[in-house]
Formats: sequence, structure tokens, C-alpha cells
Amino acid sequence: MTEQQDLPATVNTRISPRGGLDILSRDEVARLADASTGGLRELLRRCALAVLTTDSDSDDPRAASLRYPDFDIEVQQQDRGIKIELKAAPASAFVDGEIIRGIAENLFAVVRDIAYNAIEVSGSNKFDLNTGPGMTSAVFEILRNARVMRSYQNPSLVVCWGGHSIGRDEYLYTKKVGYQLGLRGLDICTGCGPGAMKGPMKGATIAHAKQRQSRPRYIGITEPGIIAAESPNPIVNHLVIMPDIEKRLEAFVRLGHGIIVFPGGVGTAEEILYLLGVLLHPANAELPFPLIFTGPAESAAYFEQIDQFLRLTLGEAATSRYRIIVDDAAEVAKVMREGIRKVREHRLKEQDAFFFNWSLHLPEEFQRPFPPTHAAMAGLKLHRDQPPHLLAADLRRAFSGIVAGNVKEEGMREIERHGPYIIDGDKEIMRALDGLLKAFVAQRRMKISGSYKPCYQVAND
Amino acid sequence: MTEQQDLPATVNTRISPRGGLDILSRDEVARLADASTGGLRELLRRCALAVLTTDSDSDDPRAASLRYPDFDIEVQQQDRGIKIELKAAPASAFVDGEIIRGIAENLFAVVRDIAYNAIEVSGSNKFDLNTGPGMTSAVFEILRNARVMRSYQNPSLVVCWGGHSIGRDEYLYTKKVGYQLGLRGLDICTGCGPGAMKGPMKGATIAHAKQRQSRPRYIGITEPGIIAAESPNPIVNHLVIMPDIEKRLEAFVRLGHGIIVFPGGVGTAEEILYLLGVLLHPANAELPFPLIFTGPAESAAYFEQIDQFLRLTLGEAATSRYRIIVDDAAEVAKVMREGIRKVREHRLKEQDAFFFNWSLHLPEEFQRPFPPTHAAMAGLKLHRDQPPHLLAADLRRAFSGIVAGNVKEEGMREIERHGPYIIDGDKEIMRALDGLLKAFVAQRRMKISGSYKPCYQVAND
Amino acid sequence: MTEQQDLPATVNTRISPRGGLDILSRDEVARLADASTGGLRELLRRCALAVLTTDSDSDDPRAASLRYPDFDIEVQQQDRGIKIELKAAPASAFVDGEIIRGIAENLFAVVRDIAYNAIEVSGSNKFDLNTGPGMTSAVFEILRNARVMRSYQNPSLVVCWGGHSIGRDEYLYTKKVGYQLGLRGLDICTGCGPGAMKGPMKGATIAHAKQRQSRPRYIGITEPGIIAAESPNPIVNHLVIMPDIEKRLEAFVRLGHGIIVFPGGVGTAEEILYLLGVLLHPANAELPFPLIFTGPAESAAYFEQIDQFLRLTLGEAATSRYRIIVDDAAEVAKVMREGIRKVREHRLKEQDAFFFNWSLHLPEEFQRPFPPTHAAMAGLKLHRDQPPHLLAADLRRAFSGIVAGNVKEEGMREIERHGPYIIDGDKEIMRALDGLLKAFVAQRRMKISGSYKPCYQVAND
Amino acid sequence: MTEQQDLPATVNTRISPRGGLDILSRDEVARLADASTGGLRELLRRCALAVLTTDSDSDDPRAASLRYPDFDIEVQQQDRGIKIELKAAPASAFVDGEIIRGIAENLFAVVRDIAYNAIEVSGSNKFDLNTGPGMTSAVFEILRNARVMRSYQNPSLVVCWGGHSIGRDEYLYTKKVGYQLGLRGLDICTGCGPGAMKGPMKGATIAHAKQRQSRPRYIGITEPGIIAAESPNPIVNHLVIMPDIEKRLEAFVRLGHGIIVFPGGVGTAEEILYLLGVLLHPANAELPFPLIFTGPAESAAYFEQIDQFLRLTLGEAATSRYRIIVDDAAEVAKVMREGIRKVREHRLKEQDAFFFNWSLHLPEEFQRPFPPTHAAMAGLKLHRDQPPHLLAADLRRAFSGIVAGNVKEEGMREIERHGPYIIDGDKEIMRALDGLLKAFVAQRRMKISGSYKPCYQVAND
Repeated sequence: MTEQQDLPATVNTRISPRGGLDILSRDEVARLADASTGGLRELLRRCALAVLTTDSDSDDPRAASLRYPDFDIEVQQQDRGIKIELKAAPASAFVDGEIIRGIAENLFAVVRDIAYNAIEVSGSNKFDLNTGPGMTSAVFEILRNARVMRSYQNPSLVVCWGGHSIGRDEYLYTKKVGYQLGLRGLDICTGCGPGAMKGPMKGATIAHAKQRQSRPRYIGITEPGIIAAESPNPIVNHLVIMPDIEKRLEAFVRLGHGIIVFPGGVGTAEEILYLLGVLLHPANAELPFPLIFTGPAESAAYFEQIDQFLRLTLGEAATSRYRIIVDDAAEVAKVMREGIRKVREHRLKEQDAFFFNWSLHLPEEFQRPFPPTHAAMAGLKLHRDQPPHLLAADLRRAFSGIVAGNVKEEGMREIERHGPYIIDGDKEIMRALDGLLKAFVAQRRMKISGSYKPCYQVAND
Repeated sequence: MTEQQDLPATVNTRISPRGGLDILSRDEVARLADASTGGLRELLRRCALAVLTTDSDSDDPRAASLRYPDFDIEVQQQDRGIKIELKAAPASAFVDGEIIRGIAENLFAVVRDIAYNAIEVSGSNKFDLNTGPGMTSAVFEILRNARVMRSYQNPSLVVCWGGHSIGRDEYLYTKKVGYQLGLRGLDICTGCGPGAMKGPMKGATIAHAKQRQSRPRYIGITEPGIIAAESPNPIVNHLVIMPDIEKRLEAFVRLGHGIIVFPGGVGTAEEILYLLGVLLHPANAELPFPLIFTGPAESAAYFEQIDQFLRLTLGEAATSRYRIIVDDAAEVAKVMREGIRKVREHRLKEQDAFFFNWSLHLPEEFQRPFPPTHAAMAGLKLHRDQPPHLLAADLRRAFSGIVAGNVKEEGMREIERHGPYIIDGDKEIMRALDGLLKAFVAQRRMKISGSYKPCYQVAND
Repeated sequence: MTEQQDLPATVNTRISPRGGLDILSRDEVARLADASTGGLRELLRRCALAVLTTDSDSDDPRAASLRYPDFDIEVQQQDRGIKIELKAAPASAFVDGEIIRGIAENLFAVVRDIAYNAIEVSGSNKFDLNTGPGMTSAVFEILRNARVMRSYQNPSLVVCWGGHSIGRDEYLYTKKVGYQLGLRGLDICTGCGPGAMKGPMKGATIAHAKQRQSRPRYIGITEPGIIAAESPNPIVNHLVIMPDIEKRLEAFVRLGHGIIVFPGGVGTAEEILYLLGVLLHPANAELPFPLIFTGPAESAAYFEQIDQFLRLTLGEAATSRYRIIVDDAAEVAKVMREGIRKVREHRLKEQDAFFFNWSLHLPEEFQRPFPPTHAAMAGLKLHRDQPPHLLAADLRRAFSGIVAGNVKEEGMREIERHGPYIIDGDKEIMRALDGLLKAFVAQRRMKISGSYKPCYQVAND
Repeated sequence: MTEQQDLPATVNTRISPRGGLDILSRDEVARLADASTGGLRELLRRCALAVLTTDSDSDDPRAASLRYPDFDIEVQQQDRGIKIELKAAPASAFVDGEIIRGIAENLFAVVRDIAYNAIEVSGSNKFDLNTGPGMTSAVFEILRNARVMRSYQNPSLVVCWGGHSIGRDEYLYTKKVGYQLGLRGLDICTGCGPGAMKGPMKGATIAHAKQRQSRPRYIGITEPGIIAAESPNPIVNHLVIMPDIEKRLEAFVRLGHGIIVFPGGVGTAEEILYLLGVLLHPANAELPFPLIFTGPAESAAYFEQIDQFLRLTLGEAATSRYRIIVDDAAEVAKVMREGIRKVREHRLKEQDAFFFNWSLHLPEEFQRPFPPTHAAMAGLKLHRDQPPHLLAADLRRAFSGIVAGNVKEEGMREIERHGPYIIDGDKEIMRALDGLLKAFVAQRRMKISGSYKPCYQVAND
């Protein structure tokens, strides 16, 4: 993709920590320094590079490494605390040699979360990660450690999902929706990255400026597998790196007070299936959770197809959980605000926290990490002889596997080794799934650039 | 232009004052209430409507009045203070019935400045408006009353000039420049309005968010004649309405620490001539004042033509005062930051204030209001048998008259009554002027919409 | 008093302005510099020295000058603004050579107000000081210029009056009351100086710390004649110097939401007569204005005597306007808070400002400055053949004259020249007055130190 | 002590958490609620009562319980978080039924620290409390959890030690010193309680107000055994409850940048021996640590006696570590500021944190909790055949035991059961010790009220 002889400009520098990594014990400093030169080095390097190549146009997780082959990051110990040493870092993260402050903050968020996940979550016996409550505890602690929850703040957080590879009109529409949300004082949370994950934040930034909002929040939630393909934008002023895709999804639905879905590809489909699967669980029947599918006029057909797929797979009941609004950004924001008002009332009534959706029941099927191996993909139960939320769980996994095969290093390696995943199941579902995936390909929703070679094969194709 | 039968949505409401109009004496409250129903009513109504029709696409000063024929504003007295009553106000200024906060602030700025100008500036003998120092005092007091100056703040204010009617590429370029300025911690001041006056603010807003700038400044300086054609964008968080075009120009050069000129039409030409005329005065020979002309690659020819016109009329010496940078937003920002660094050093050395450029000598020719009558336009001395700064002064007036004839209500009425202005002078200058004006017409820089019918005639045409 | 050979330590330094004097025009800077070396020099020098000798134990207005004979202050012009040059200033205002910040702020307040009073109030025709409304306007503008009024803040300002020369128990009691007021979130306003004017602020400071009050207000209102005898304490974080004693009294009753009177001498008696005279005017009959007389158990007799004097002179009706509470600091604070709650309701109902008591009717008798000459003192109408508020007005003047003869330079000179003031009137009133004054002398309330030689003679004594 | 028939006024109420206990997980909420009704109940009740009986005049740890026999506190679970339910709480902590904010904050600090100590420190295997580094880690984590450390803040924390039972003059002098420290921008840390632990904070509060210090810190560090006898003053805006006396002492010397010792009794002697013992360890020879003994003129003899005792026991070398300043509050503050300047330089040079004194070597003898049993007291090695820091360690323990016997519930019970502690050792030391203790008794430094019956017996007495 890039030629070695024409490498981009780089910078060597050392930066001082900001918020959260400033009061460390000597042990912690030592562990961070060790970690950055030991087992976590490659992970840290990859995530840091993603933060530093913000606004990149590529979703190839290996592209950044190829462009910045000499990039390195090291956490250095000082008795007083730590410094981060950057070598051959992308010059685009700097302004006249000085790092952009938002990028520096996100860089320290990367160090903070990778260390926390390694030391406190997987490296200690603090959480029982084999149980649902244990996993939820881990999610809560990671978010608290990232200081992303605010007490005494009214519900205002809108999660925006949608594709990183979307058309120009779709992108502009996500900005408009963000603008309308911002005008109404709502904050934005996305999965980081370009496209539908960047537009709403930019739109909201302009609206928050017009409304003189003094402490707007732009929360980005990502995970190590996806961050390299979807670089966090420095508008993000709270970046959190969850340990895996399932905890990232849980973070979205526990933190967010409502969710908007823009057009997207398999990642977006995964998110939709996840949320609907959870909401269809009988324990959540009474829980208010505003969910809107929206896009510009050109995307109307897209949501029709999604809608049909959901009716077919999860049944008509599922449709009561979402609302499709086409080409009306102000209406989307109004409906969301009203929905969040109801969430607020419900939380007050139930004496539930505003900052974490404790009441939402998350079946363990949705929490347990899914390793996208060929065996696992082949073993998915994609038929309707089960409650809708279980079918949703396995459909979610199917899409999750394809995301991995498309844009995650690990998944891409699997495909290179063993060929495409085979997905099998109920014929009608397979037909619908195949149609959906083909449409994603045709609409160029799978990858930002280059021609797309499917990493899957629908069995009865 | 708009048909009465299809009037846009409107809102009736009352709003409470924000910053600056909150501690009023009973007399002041009474005077404001009187003023808003008496002699200032029409002026107030017009300016308020401009603020409320932000983001409008029209530069026809009468368009808003036609679209909102029933709009009215009244300042109402309460013992406790004032309220503003709005009738039939544009719904676009509201979000679900609530006024956008930035618009409310700007609305109160309009009331504040119109009252101050009427009562303190023209209505009292506080300032001797027949002398240069008296006019400068008035400018200072209006700006102080608007709380637009900050002590202890390092020089950081970049004035951006340029056309309200510019091409898409030019507009995107102004955003890029604003973004690069914002990344470097610089604040933006423009003349309000669309095009080159909006782009830099939007770009800077995104950059300021990325740099976590906590109190960015977006200053808009306008005057009653122009505001209706160039509505203030609500990103503007300090709006000031100067009493006339000359005081507005003085406000720009006293407040700003450097100036960037984007492509524009006659208004931009007026600004260039004003500033160069002032800087060419011998008294300002040693004063640092960074001045950059810039645009995208497509606008290169535009600045060549301007450059030639300036060489021809003001002489080669003038060119040492500005620098032309084509299609390099980052370079523009770097050069500006470096220039402002020198301004800072100079102010420190001279013990001059950071917040007001007292040291700049403003010849009275540039301060005295110019009434764009046919007689005055005909009497301009457009020849080179005079010092360059005096020729610049009259060329400035020529362009100022054409601006009036193009987009100001008063000027438009003059033209309707008496036909185009006749502009006469030195033949070579006239040829160059004619060429420049024709190019503005050809490039559609005179008006946003509709075909342009010149309001002037170059004599030896 | 002090011997020249044993002069206290002094400091020479230059200080930079704080809040309010930072954005000045070149004219203003020049006027301030001129003023400080011209006609205002002596006044400025005297007031500045008072601020710098804070916590002094003397109430002799000439003492500070004797102790610091070489002290001088000069406002120096810089293009950037001003600096204050201090020569031979009391070392007690400095900590290791650096001025105490609160003292620096108060020093700039002195410069600000003396200049404003000289230039804007007496030196321009802005206010018609011959009319009641004109005088009220001047009071309002001086207070606004001093930025002492806050919009959107609930009524919370308790004015504390009382003697500067009080006993230890009385002083400790004023601290207790201040503490109880502070616990209830109330702010303090006094006339500056020691004794009853310092105690409440110290007590409130401790209470505000315990209640984590973030922006407590300690307002000191003084005037040039009294400041030298009653130095402002640097806890005062808003110091205002009114031009004369009558405008100072008006400032108290317009700003304050309630008043507490501690034991004091003639100055306190002046204040009581002023306020009761105003409140007894029929136009103020319905206006709520909490007024409490309070002191420790030892002071019970004191207030009995005051009470009797008021009943005798102003009639029984006057007693409905105040409440006497003995030795119960918490009760005082509770009653005051409740009283202020009613003031708030009244203002809301009448749509009157919280920050200035516009509704209070001030008869001109109470506004016009009273020059304490022997003739004027002899001409006072001290009989009951007039409405109570007129008798109160002249009794107020009688006490005001005695204050001048006691502690103001000008008054003291008059007495030295012409002997004691002769005070004459209705026999019964004279007897009561004489008894009251004799009690003040006996209780050492006239002067802080030394034996007291009366500056007055009650005629039918 | 108090008669049941005359119980003081009480209040029942529920209060909401402030800072630090607002973002809790459901588990944490449950654990807190459990703890408050289970094993920690009595501890929590006792500490909470201490916070609520602030400004009490008694140092009898059982007095408050006797006066408020029905007092109870319960942490109540709500899904949203917690509430604290108070029953029969001292009315003095409330103002007109509303809790004083500083008291509420300290109440939540009690809950926070008791829970943290029980769950994280003693209840988990997070820290190895058998090793020095493990104990230091625990101290660091408790302080971090209490958010008492600030990054980026210059060294400014002065620890003030001294008696809770001191004379009026001594108390006033501690206020003066606090005032002088506050004037120099220094913050105060004490052990909570009356006397020398309250005076400096009150003085500093007034000085901080005069210097317009916006975020002054008043840190109180206590432990469960002592808190009941030494109630925290609500000026304390950071209260920390360490698990035992040794960790409390470590917290003082790790957090503080310098220490001032006022006159006191055995507790103060314990603190002096602790600090000198530590500083005399060879590993700390080069470490700057300003230490000043000071008191009013009347206390000169007191410090002479201490000085002699230290020379005798620890040798002349010890005297280079402290400086005695008599009756000169300003000098104390100046010397302390200069000393802290050197601490700052040293930390910068060593790249050590400003917020925690990592470089100080703490021998384990000083860290290990000392149980004041009769056996332990009898076994102390009080002779000079050992390095001075070891003798200091055992002398510290001797005083610590006497403190326990005097004012801690547990210790008092021991004495009631087994009679006085027997303290034996080197004869010369015993004589000096006996003299010192007798002087404490004579000067009424052992107990605030009542006659003192010694809880110890010096063997060769």
C-alpha cells in the first residue's frame, strides 16, 4: 500500500501524562514501564499508533504499521511518575512539533486501559470472568477507572452506531444528526473511527459551540482488535479501550441512554443483532431503551432490507423495539430526546443510577467472548427453533466473525490460512443473510478501499 | 422573492438577558424600552432579524424582512430589569421552541450596542467625533462596553477577511485555514456573515475541540448597514455592532493581531485598500502587522490580479506589507503565528496593551465616515499625484461605495433613484479598476444569487 | 504619638493592577496618572495609607501619617496600562516583601473609586447631584463601577453596623453572629474598620469555610473622611469608597437585604437614626426590611437606653421596625434569614432587582450631604413638632457632626478652631441626648484610645 | 459525666453522598450497607459520632457515646447508590436542621475509609502487611483513595503537631503561626482535634481569605483509636482515617513537606520521637526535612526540657535535625517556607513526586503496629546500647502506650484491668522520662478536664 521509499514525516518526542495517570505508586510506575517493554509492548504499540494516525483514511489494520515501521512507544519510569517516549511517530499528530492535546490525552487513555485490562482484569482474580455478574463488574470498573461516568448528570448520552465506510451523503447526514442532537444538549458516544463514528461528533461540536455547552462529552469506546482499523478522532474527549468486543458492546448499552443506528456494514449488523437480542429477552420487556435507525433518503432501501431481515429472523415483535426515520435529522433528535426523558423517569422510579444501566439484563450468551474460528463459525445455530434472543445471539456472532475476517489482524490471518468461514443454517435465514451480505458488498460497506473479497461463504448459497 | 402565501414558520416568545445587560439602572431600563419602541425601533428590528436568520443563504438585505413581515422585537421594562419580546421570529433560531443560546446572546449584543451607540456615542457629547482621537475613543469604549477585550491574554486574534459570496472550494479552504489556526491556539475575528467569514470559525471550532481549548473566542464585528446582508453565525461568541463602516474597520485593526485575506469581492478590496493605506503611512513604518493573502490553488489568479492592482496603484513598496500564500493552510497558520509572536514582542518593548493596538496611527482620512452619494463618488481623487496612503484612502472609498450600492439598503435606494455611480480618475488606474471589477462580476463575487447589474460605471471605460 | 526616631519598617515597590483597572483607555491612564500627582494626590495618599495600615489599632486619622511620614503613592502611566508605585509603605502590608493580595486589590479599589468619584461623579455633568434621583444614580453607578452587584444571586447580604471601639466581649459576640450568619450562607457588608466591622467578617470566614462556600462576599463600604480612622480589613473582598457619608449610607440600604446593629457609639447612633428615619417615611410603610439590634448579655442595658431614646424621639411606632435580641447569635441569624426570605418574596412580587433596593424611598433630607459646621449644628431642628422622619433626619445630622468632631480630620480642625459644637432643641430630647452621649463616653465608645474630650455641648445641659 | 435526664438535642435525617462515594458499583453499595450493619457497625458509629461532635470540649472517648446514647448511623442501599441514615445525631452538627456541609463531607470520608480499610486493606490480600513496602503501599492507596494527593502542585503542606490540651496562650500562638503560614500560601495538615490541631487551621483560613487563595487544603489525618477523643474540625476539607497509629504517622511524614511541633503532651512526644528516629536513620542523612519546635514565650521552658531529653537520649547529633523558635510566628513561617523550597529542589533533582515522599526510608520498627499491652510496654528496650534510631523507636512506643492509656478506649480498659504500665530501662533515661512526664502532668497536658491519674509507672521512680 505504501512504498518504503516514500515514508511519511515522523517525530521523536517525550510527553507528560494528563489526567488519571498522574498519581501513581512506584509499583504502578514500574509495572507500566515493564509492561510497555514486555508482553504488552506490541499491543500498546499498535493501539498507540492508531491514536496517532487519527483521521487516517485506511481501515487496513496493518497499513499504519507499514507506513510507520519504526514507530515505537515506551513508558518510562521516573521516580516522580512516568513519561511516554515516542519514536518515529506520525507527524500528522503534531502541530509544529507539539502533540495535539486531544491526541496526547487519548494516548494516555490507551496506556491506562491496556495496563488496567492486563493487570487488574485478566491479571488478577478480582473479577470472575466466567460469570455474567463478574463480566459486568469488569466492565463497570474499566469505565470507572477511565472516569467516564459522571454522577449527578442527567441522562444525555446517545450512542451512534453505523459504518466506517459510508457514502458522502450518508456521512453528511450523520453530521446533521449530530448537529441536531448537540443543539438539544445531548452528548455523543461512538465506537471511534471514521464515517458514522466521526460525523455525529463533528456535527455536535458545532452545535455545542452554538449552545455554549461548557463540558460536552464525546466518548469513544473501542477494543484492541478494532482500534487499528478505526482510529479514534481527537474530538473524542473520553477514550476507553475495552478488552474485547463483547465488553465493548456491554459498555455501549450500559453507558448509553439511547442508540441511533446509521447505515453500515457487518459491524453495524452485529451491533443491531446484539441490542435487539438483549432487548427481546423477557427480563427487559419493560425497560425503556430508545433505538432509532436513520439515514438520508438514499439509504431508505438499506433500512428496508435490514427491517425485513429482522422481521424474518427475530419476528414481528422485534420491530416494536426500534423506529426507522428517513432523512429527518431534527425528528431523530426530537424522538431521541423524548425517549431519553422516559429513560430518566424510569431510572428515578427504579432508583437506578443515571450513569450505568444496572437494570438491563444481559444474557451470558451476549457477554461471553466469541473467538471467530472456523469451527466456531461453522457451529453457530442459525435456525428459528429457539427463542429469538438466542437466534439473535448467534446471528450476532456470525456478523462478528465476518468483521474479524474483514478488518482485524487476527481474523484476517485465519482467513488467509483456512479460507473463508462457512456459515450454515436454516435455508430461509441463509438466503436472507446472503442477500444482506451481498448488498453490503455491492454498496461498498465492507471495506473503505480496494475491491472486497468475501471472507465467508453462506452454505446454501 | 418569497411569496406571501408560503411564509416560513415563526415563534413568539420572551427571553431573559444574558451577560452585560443584567445589571442595569432603572434609567437604562427605561431608555432601552423607550428606544426599542421609538426612533431605534426599525434599526433594532432589522439587526435583530439578521441575528435570528443566521445561516441564511441570501445577501439581499431586504429578503429577511420580506420573509418575516410580521417580525417584531420589543425591549420590555421590568423593575428587575428587561425582557426581550419577540413576535413572529424565524423558527430556525429555535430548537423545539427554545432559542439557541448563542443566538440569544447575540440578540442581547444587538440591543446593547444599538443602545450604546445611540445614547453614549451619538447621543451624548462624551466623544468628539470630529477628531481622530475622539473617534478612536468611541471605538475603544464600544469594544470595552461589549467586553470583547481581555487583559492578560497573549496576542492571539486573527482577523479573517474575504468574500461572503465565494466558491465551494474557496469556502472549504477557509475552513482548513481556520482549522490550522485553531490547532495553533489562535482565535478568530471576522465580519460575520457567510462564506469566508463563517468557514474559519467552523474550522477553528473543530481544532479548538481537539486542542481542548477551554475559552476560544469567535468575534464578529459588523455594522447596521451590513448586518442584514451578512447575518452573524451563532458560533460567534462575541458580537459587536459598530456604528458605521469606518469604525468597524478601525475595530478590526485595533483588536486584531494579524489579518488573513481570503478571496472576495469589492468589500474585500475595500478592506485591503484600507489596511494597506494605513500601513503605508510613514508613522506606521516600523509597526509589525502580519498580513497574508491566501486561497486555494484555483484562486491563484485572483490574488495575482489583486497584486498587480496594488503594485500599480500603491507602488512596489506596498508589496512588502503582505505575503501571498497559495493553497497551503498550515503554512498560512505558521506564518501568522510567527508574525503574531513579533507583534507580541513589539508590544512588550513599547509597553503597549495586548488588547488594543494604540500604536497604530490611523490618518483621519480612514476614520471619517464616507457617505456613498453620487457626488461623493464622483469627487474621489483617483490619481497618483499624491502620497500612496491618500490614493489608498480614496480607492477604499470607491470600493466602499460599490459595496453600498450592491448590498446595503440605503445605497441600493440611491442607485435606484440616480443610476450607477460614476467613478473617474487617472486612466491607467481606471483601466485596472475596471478590469478588477469585471473579474469580480465574472467570478460571481458581487452577489450570492441572481444576475448582477453593476451599480457603478468606470468613467473612461 | 509615635516618635520620629522610632519609625516602623517600610517597603518600596511597584504593583500591577488587578480586576477592574486592567482594561483602560489611554485617556484614562493619563487622567489617573495626572490625578495621582495633582489635586487628588493627598486624598489618594490618605486612603491608600489606610488600606495599607490594616489591622491598625488606632482610630486617630492622623496617626498613620505621623507613623509613615514618607509614604507616597503614585499611579504611573505605561502605554500598556498603569502601575502603582509605593514609597515607604507600611511593611505590615507585605509578607516577605510581597504585598498581601487582598490589600493590593483594595489599593486598586481606592484608585478606581477616587478617580471615578472625581472624574465621573463630581467632575462631569453626568449626574444631577441636586436631585434625589440624581444622587441615587450616582450611588448606583459607583457601585456598578466597583462590580459589587451580582445578578442572578439570591438576596443574602447582611449589613453589620456597630462601633469600632467596643469591648472584648462585644467583639467576640460580633464574631459569633458572623459565624452564625456564615453558617446560613449569608454574606457580610460593613463599614470597614475594627470592632463590630471586623468581627462578623472573621466569624463568617470560618463558617463559610465549614460550609464550603465557594464565593463568599465581604463588602466594605467607606468614604474618604472615615477611612483613615477605620482601615479596611483585607478580608474585605469588595471595597467601595463612596464620595461622602450620605452616599455611603445610601449604598448600605440599597445593597443590603437586612441590617444588624451591634453596640457602638455616635456613628452607630447616626446609622440607626438614618435607617429608622427612612423606614418611618410613609412611602416605605409596606417595604420589608429586617433590622435587628443585638449584643452580648453585658450590652443589654445599652440597647435599653437606645430603645428608650428612640421611643422618646421617634415614637412608639418606630419600635415595630426593629427587634432587639440579647446574647443569642444563632437566633439573630435565624431571624435575619427569615427576614431576608420575605425581602426576596417582596422583590419577586414587585419585580424589583435583587441587587439594588430601587423600591426604597429615600427622602432628600437623608441624601443631601451635611457639612458639620458650627452653624449647621446649631441650626438643627431637634423638636417633635414635625413628622418623625424629619426629626430623625436632624438627629442623624447631630450624631454625624459629632462623629466628624471625634474622628475626621476636617471636623477635628473645626473643633480645634471654634470649640465644641452647640446642640440645642426640645428640652426632653436634649436631656435624653445628653444622657445617651454621656453613656457613650462612660462606656469608652467615643474613641479607641486616650481620654475623650467631648467635641459638643448639649445646650440645656 | 452527663446525666441521662438532660440529653442534648438531636436530629434524625438522611444525607446524600458527596465526592468519592458517588460512582459506586452495586457490589460496593451492598458491601457498604452490609458493613454498616455488620462487623464494622460499632467502629463506624463511633467515628461518625466523633465527626458529628466537632468542636466538642471533651477528650474522653466515651463521653460522646454517653451524651448521644441513641445515636446510630446506617449506610442504606439504593440501586442508584447510597444514603446515610442518621438517628439521634448531635444537633450541633446542623444549622436549622440542615447538616453543615463540611461535616457531611467528613462523614462520607469516614464511611469511605472504614470500608476501604476493612475491605481492601485488611480484608484482601492486596497488600503484604508484613513487609515495609507492603505497609507503605497500603498507606499510599488509602491516601489516593481519599483523593488527598494533588499532582502538579508545588510542595506546600505543613504538618502541625502539638497537644490537644494546651493553654490559652499556646492556642492563640498556634493560630498566629497558622496565619503566617497561610499568608505564605502554605497548606495545613494536622491530626484533627482541638488545641494545636485546630488553631493553625483557623489562622490559615483567615490568611488564605486575605490572600484570596482559591483552593486551600486543610488535611486531617486520624485513626479509629484517636478520633473519638479528637473530633475533626469541619474546616478540615480532606479527612483521612488511617487503620492504625503507625500508618497515620507514616501518612504524615510521606505527605507533609515540613513539620511544626507545638507544645503538647505524650502524643506530641511520640510524634517527635517517631520523626527524629526516622530522620536519624543513616539512609535519610541527606534528605531535607524541615522540622521546627515552636511556642509562645511562656512555653520556652517546655522546649528546653524536650531539647534536653532528646540530647540525652538520642545524642547531640539529633539536634541538627530540628530548630527551636520561641514566640516568633512570622519567623517560623519564613524558615518553614525556605525549608520547603529546599525540599522542592531536592525532589526535582531526584525526580521524586511532590505528592508522596517516596525517598524517605522508614525502618520497619516504625511501621509495625505496636499493641500497648502491659507485656509489650514492659519489654521496651530503653537503653543507649543501640543505634539512636532504635532507641527512638522504643521511646516512641513508650509514649504511644501512654497515649493509649490516657485517651483510647482500648488502652483505658487495659489500665482499668491491670493497673498502670510499668516502664523500665537505663536509669538516666528513666529519670529524664519521669521528669518529662511529671512536667506534662503538672502543665495539664495529659487530659483536657478533670484531675489526671497516671496510667504508667516509671520503674526506677
